[in-house]
Amino acid sequence: MNKMIEASSNIERFFNAHAVAIIGASTNPEKLGHVILSNIIAGGFQGKIYPINPKEKEILGFPVYASINEIPDKIDLAVIVIPAASVPETLRQAVVKGAGAAIIISGGFREAGRVDLENELLDIVAETGIRLVGPNCQGINYIPNKLCASWPIITTPGSMAIISQSGTVAATIAGWAEEENWGISASVSLGNQIDVNETDLLEYFASDPNIRSIALYLEGAKDGRRFLNVAHKMVSTKPLIVLKSGRTSGGQRAAASHTKSMAGKDEIFDAACRQFGIVRAADIEGLYDLSKGLASLKPGKGRRLMIITSSGGSGILAVDKAEKCGLIIEPLPEIVKEKLKNTEIPANATLANPLDLTVATASEFKNALQVLSEFDLADLYLIIFGDPIPGAAATSIWLRDKIGSKVAVAYLGGGEVERQERKIMHQEGIPVFSTPERAVNALGAVVWTEQYKNNH
Amino acid sequence: MNKMIEASSNIERFFNAHAVAIIGASTNPEKLGHVILSNIIAGGFQGKIYPINPKEKEILGFPVYASINEIPDKIDLAVIVIPAASVPETLRQAVVKGAGAAIIISGGFREAGRVDLENELLDIVAETGIRLVGPNCQGINYIPNKLCASWPIITTPGSMAIISQSGTVAATIAGWAEEENWGISASVSLGNQIDVNETDLLEYFASDPNIRSIALYLEGAKDGRRFLNVAHKMVSTKPLIVLKSGRTSGGQRAAASHTKSMAGKDEIFDAACRQFGIVRAADIEGLYDLSKGLASLKPGKGRRLMIITSSGGSGILAVDKAEKCGLIIEPLPEIVKEKLKNTEIPANATLANPLDLTVATASEFKNALQVLSEFDLADLYLIIFGDPIPGAAATSIWLRDKIGSKVAVAYLGGGEVERQERKIMHQEGIPVFSTPERAVNALGAVVWTEQYKNNH
Repeated sequence: MNKMIEASSNIERFFNAHAVAIIGASTNPEKLGHVILSNIIAGGFQGKIYPINPKEKEILGFPVYASINEIPDKIDLAVIVIPAASVPETLRQAVVKGAGAAIIISGGFREAGRVDLENELLDIVAETGIRLVGPNCQGINYIPNKLCASWPIITTPGSMAIISQSGTVAATIAGWAEEENWGISASVSLGNQIDVNETDLLEYFASDPNIRSIALYLEGAKDGRRFLNVAHKMVSTKPLIVLKSGRTSGGQRAAASHTKSMAGKDEIFDAACRQFGIVRAADIEGLYDLSKGLASLKPGKGRRLMIITSSGGSGILAVDKAEKCGLIIEPLPEIVKEKLKNTEIPANATLANPLDLTVATASEFKNALQVLSEFDLADLYLIIFGDPIPGAAATSIWLRDKIGSKVAVAYLGGGEVERQERKIMHQEGIPVFSTPERAVNALGAVVWTEQYKNNH
Repeated sequence: MNKMIEASSNIERFFNAHAVAIIGASTNPEKLGHVILSNIIAGGFQGKIYPINPKEKEILGFPVYASINEIPDKIDLAVIVIPAASVPETLRQAVVKGAGAAIIISGGFREAGRVDLENELLDIVAETGIRLVGPNCQGINYIPNKLCASWPIITTPGSMAIISQSGTVAATIAGWAEEENWGISASVSLGNQIDVNETDLLEYFASDPNIRSIALYLEGAKDGRRFLNVAHKMVSTKPLIVLKSGRTSGGQRAAASHTKSMAGKDEIFDAACRQFGIVRAADIEGLYDLSKGLASLKPGKGRRLMIITSSGGSGILAVDKAEKCGLIIEPLPEIVKEKLKNTEIPANATLANPLDLTVATASEFKNALQVLSEFDLADLYLIIFGDPIPGAAATSIWLRDKIGSKVAVAYLGGGEVERQERKIMHQEGIPVFSTPERAVNALGAVVWTEQYKNNH
């Protein structure tokens, strides 16, 4: 009964829509049909918006049509939020109106025992060539087209894409990216993925210039071999970070009843990732952190990490983690120490790697970094700001502009100042992490990826 | 030259002060002497506040004294923020004015090669009996006395104490607790700990009824045997969670130059923790999470975890983590499934453990929990809210009131609703974690501690 997935050449229909119908748009703010319409409007979508609901005349200022048939123009994308039984008929109407793609939010299909309804949808796909995301999904948000056909509302542009077999995992990462002004380029919740699956999207996103790294939450790939081939082709230019659940036998049982995925042995997937250059995240935070780091950092060829900190304890925690992540903390050469001694930095500073400035201002950080950056000390820099340090962002940006995208930041213990400075750095594409451990974890993945590329 | 530390019986001087002098108070908002005075005022300290500065008449509305000698009354606590060379003389003056304790924020001692200055301070301790925290530290915040002699300003009361050999680690955890309305009872930054050390504080906090769990960041204990004895005596009534750095050889070298701690073999410390009932955190976030969970949860005698979720993916990630943390996910009995079938919950719900409600409202969660809680299904519950779910807090509080402190929450993908609901739950003492993995990590520690207590 399964339809073979064709090439992803027409996946772009989801991402360059000009006229969207929201079938099941609602006046009730608690209904998804309201939330999604509202988010499409609030996201700033520049194309046509057609809410469909037989009982309403106007929602959020937009005229409502009783059915798709009544829309006066063509549409190219349908977002469907109505009971499952009505979805096939609606999908046919959407095709007639010109839709080349549909996002089916509605649940009540395979996961509720209604495989027959899914097969009806697949018949329509086979007959008409329309492409489907879902059903039973949390939609798509594509910021370059300002089309947030999903929830919650996320509008901050970034360079990271999220593909997820869990709507919540996607929403969580997108929410963090929004809150700290890092941003995303795309977020896709796959749901039951009867048509478009994770590999189709990977293949499409591989050549999307708006995307620089891809975060994937995976319970199981439909076609493992194709997944690995597509991923492998991609990772030379665009890093792929995967959080794969079902690592334990209990998790595999749970995954089987969620997306009906057969998880397979975790060790095998792990080995395949290493072989094919896929970065594996340990948890949701790791998926976010690694994708941030890999979207923004271009390390040197080696594994040397230089740490500068105003928090001695944080420096030690960073070193501990660095050793575990395969990074090298080289001692500070004597000549650098000598130069630092003649520099305006705190008198109690520990002249080593980590360079512990103790309590320090942003300009003392800059003075020290001015000296360090005259030497070839490291393939990556980690600046740890521990305290509310105004001007931290300007110092980090200055260093990045001088030595290139080799600069990551951990900022902690800084309260409101920290939150503001982080937003400025994120605006500039410098990744900021909330602890030294999370920062180094991301840096380890950045270096591993670079080394993989150099060796393949 | 080292003075033997005496019993901690007079440590309470730091925590019940009624009259505080801030030596080095400043009008310049960028100086610590200003920040600390400002925080003591903003924290709502009810006792007398005496700023000391020879050049000022008034700071932040308080009359300023040129020296401690000029204070008209007795003081009981001195907070010292002046250059190191002047600290010994000032400390003597403080003793004369009645101070039984001093917090020395100033750096420029052992860490800057001035062991001689520290020895002067120790001589004063020996002569007079005054107790010292510091030097080179970030101070003390004790919320029951509303005395924030530290930074940043933290005022939300809670039941967790922080003791830290890094000021930034303490500030970071306290900052998180403030931001998400969890709160703390105490935060102590130890600095060079020439007098009061981590073990003295543990011993004192062991009998402080305001404190229910203790988070300790440790680079090295001065007296390992005493530390373990004190910790061991305490853990039967009050959990101790330790983040110990210097786990790797590089980290040990860095620790040696930070707090001059000899770290010792990590495996030995690890084994000692297991034997003595001390919980070990893997990173700063873990230190916070485990301390939150252990301050608030009282599990049943077993290791059974019941998970209810509106996010299937999050449920699987929780199961994966649970298996690694030694928790048991028992299948849902048939009789419970039957009852759930006659309950108003989403039709697509997966009736299992995890109980995956799919997209669900707070009242659907409550309907399901009403059924579950009629049975003895678990020693701990994890509710995972994945989405903005208004009313999540009320449902969690209802369950906690029904079954006791066995309820933890993971809330993710919920944006502003999530932040508000989390604050309400934290106000009620229900711990909320930002991912399923972090929640289960904390629950694993809660169960381990309970089992340890039952077996010892």
